[in-house]
Amino acid sequence: MHSRKTLLGTLLWIGFLLNFIWAQKELRRDETYPPPELLKELQPVHDSCVAKTGVTEEAIKEFSDGDVHEDELLKCYMYCVFEETDVLHEDGEVHLEKILDKLPESMHVIALHMGKKCLYPKGDNKCERAFWLHRCWKEADPKHYFLI
Amino acid sequence: MHSRKTLLGTLLWIGFLLNFIWAQKELRRDETYPPPELLKELQPVHDSCVAKTGVTEEAIKEFSDGDVHEDELLKCYMYCVFEETDVLHEDGEVHLEKILDKLPESMHVIALHMGKKCLYPKGDNKCERAFWLHRCWKEADPKHYFLI
Repeated sequence: MHSRKTLLGTLLWIGFLLNFIWAQKELRRDETYPPPELLKELQPVHDSCVAKTGVTEEAIKEFSDGDVHEDELLKCYMYCVFEETDVLHEDGEVHLEKILDKLPESMHVIALHMGKKCLYPKGDNKCERAFWLHRCWKEADPKHYFLI
Repeated sequence: MHSRKTLLGTLLWIGFLLNFIWAQKELRRDETYPPPELLKELQPVHDSCVAKTGVTEEAIKEFSDGDVHEDELLKCYMYCVFEETDVLHEDGEVHLEKILDKLPESMHVIALHMGKKCLYPKGDNKCERAFWLHRCWKEADPKHYFLI
């Protein structure tokens, strides 16, 4: 009787843990997140940067909701979005404070936690460093990360 | 009767506002904040950097709990503390992620909000840039800011 209880307890714990791990990996996509007003505002930037860089919609979607993958066009698409949303320093590097200013208040705490360990982008050129930021954010918080 | 009520209402509102403004400026200093274990850990750093830079205890205390003031020794004291707590990049600049790592978990949300608009220090030398950071933090959140 005792070992049956132990087994049941163990199974419940495994179930709980699997559920926890799954919940961590699950994307947050509902009517309030990503903020609809932000998605609407960024649609023209998306369209313009797709046209400029030639990246595919599939590559963007896969990075947003699937796995991290390397794609040179996607890297420059990411930089293009920073450029067209006016979040660059004078030297053309990404200005993280400006990104926070562009985000709706409802995203600030999420963004602060997502970005707190992604302050110093690395890479040989601007596209690589833009990609470094996005990968760092996605890895820090895959649930809330999205790419427009 | 109506005007008396209006006057009373106005006075209550003024009282409320003054209280709110005062509460914003009030320092948070109690048995849990600044975290006692952090203060204890940093005491040897404080002593060493006071000895190295020659700053006065009064100058440190005034900046911590009083007003922002310019003091060349204090600026280099601030840099010395960064140096001795090992939160520098290889090039000698302050590494903000390392600072967060050194702080107790209980301070993380406070620190993120205090520092979110202080990511890009300005100044002609390392002491100036260390001072820029401290001034930026203090101005962002005078209630929680402290200098050891």
